[in-house]
Amino acid sequence: MDYIPYCHQVQYYETDMMGVAHHANYIHWMEEARVDFMDQLGFPYGGMERAGIVSPVTKLACEYKHPSTFGDVVTVIVSVAELGGASLTIGYLMKKEDGTTVLEGTSRHVFTDKEGRILRLKRDLPEFYAALEEQL
Amino acid sequence: MDYIPYCHQVQYYETDMMGVAHHANYIHWMEEARVDFMDQLGFPYGGMERAGIVSPVTKLACEYKHPSTFGDVVTVIVSVAELGGASLTIGYLMKKEDGTTVLEGTSRHVFTDKEGRILRLKRDLPEFYAALEEQL
Amino acid sequence: MDYIPYCHQVQYYETDMMGVAHHANYIHWMEEARVDFMDQLGFPYGGMERAGIVSPVTKLACEYKHPSTFGDVVTVIVSVAELGGASLTIGYLMKKEDGTTVLEGTSRHVFTDKEGRILRLKRDLPEFYAALEEQL
Amino acid sequence: MDYIPYCHQVQYYETDMMGVAHHANYIHWMEEARVDFMDQLGFPYGGMERAGIVSPVTKLACEYKHPSTFGDVVTVIVSVAELGGASLTIGYLMKKEDGTTVLEGTSRHVFTDKEGRILRLKRDLPEFYAALEEQL
Repeated sequence: MDYIPYCHQVQYYETDMMGVAHHANYIHWMEEARVDFMDQLGFPYGGMERAGIVSPVTKLACEYKHPSTFGDVVTVIVSVAELGGASLTIGYLMKKEDGTTVLEGTSRHVFTDKEGRILRLKRDLPEFYAALEEQL
Repeated sequence: MDYIPYCHQVQYYETDMMGVAHHANYIHWMEEARVDFMDQLGFPYGGMERAGIVSPVTKLACEYKHPSTFGDVVTVIVSVAELGGASLTIGYLMKKEDGTTVLEGTSRHVFTDKEGRILRLKRDLPEFYAALEEQL
Repeated sequence: MDYIPYCHQVQYYETDMMGVAHHANYIHWMEEARVDFMDQLGFPYGGMERAGIVSPVTKLACEYKHPSTFGDVVTVIVSVAELGGASLTIGYLMKKEDGTTVLEGTSRHVFTDKEGRILRLKRDLPEFYAALEEQL
Repeated sequence: MDYIPYCHQVQYYETDMMGVAHHANYIHWMEEARVDFMDQLGFPYGGMERAGIVSPVTKLACEYKHPSTFGDVVTVIVSVAELGGASLTIGYLMKKEDGTTVLEGTSRHVFTDKEGRILRLKRDLPEFYAALEEQL
């Protein structure tokens, strides 16, 4: 895969009275970039959901390095940070157009079937696991 | 029913760089107040959803009279504005603690079953219809 | 101006438990498309704000025609619906890729200076007024 | 201080198509509970902002233990997790009415003056520091 980082333009409604993007919105941008990454990987979220697989977030960590504000274009570079037996940790690096690092973060995910049973990635989703492993 | 208006305290994350609550958030407060009104009426949304009835919004209208900002307590007075054969229009009047009118608005709703068929309120939900009629 | 409509891809975090985009999010997309329209018109919001002009929303009206959901690409066609002495009404038409109309709406705006005084568009912002008039 | 934990009722607009509260919303509830905690402590955010002090989030960590959904009342117990020379780390424990733990998390904050200079809590905000120290 020839990965192309995701770009998010900061919206007016994402700013707060401090004049910068409110910190909760970065969680949205992480999701946008993760969904885009999965598309590029060939395993779109929509397809997974239709196959009865859901993927809740179990852990989140963010370091806010510099603020961003309305009109800024924030590039989100997604990576596979850790691939466990039943969980996937995604890494995020966000930068502004001038190269300033905005955020560094991770999110951990599990994958469950319709009954809520946690799937073993290698055994239950072998092709997805292989594609992720290649990104490590 | 002895209706008690709904109160919403404006949150920091609801402000924008203009220093006031962003206009899209009022749609959330309308929903909060509507859900609370339905609770008070004895027909909670949660119960409806469990009974397979969903209630999409089909129309929305807001007039923004004065801004509100972080820390303001906004009182939302809900009323039944119009009760049609298949649709319900809810009215909203929002005021700040000093009596200033913040917003006047309406939202129109239909009610559908699991198959997406629009329900006739009087025929299909007679008790709900009667309770609403009393509020007109 | 050779106007290019705005595209918004519906995000997972914009859906609700009904399985579709929550109705409040369309207000965000209207803003995204309006900001983009102003950019294309040559009067970017950011520049206005730096010049001390803010533009609060005074009125909003939406008709929800059909739902949209995660992954849908919604095209927002912006137009100048009405140009008053002190207010601007923007029109929005949202469509899905299959041509289905998702939403029709309008938003009304005034423009104020740093002191909160409402500006007369033709007198105080003549170039902006002329550019808008051309779009009528 | 006789601290009373904060309660948040999960709203419909906070759910996603998985049928549960979207994970980004918990960041909002953390803020709501933190603002409430500061009020109870006698150092309301609003007063700080008026005094020219802003308090950006520099770090965030969440573990999502169990989902919550529309109508759930989530109790947020706030604590002072760490008090550094220039930073404050707040801890959060969220529980549902049946006692289930929903989330455990922390947020780290710095405090800056109008010029963006980071304040030394003990030296620059001694009363606030003393009040926080008591909560450790």
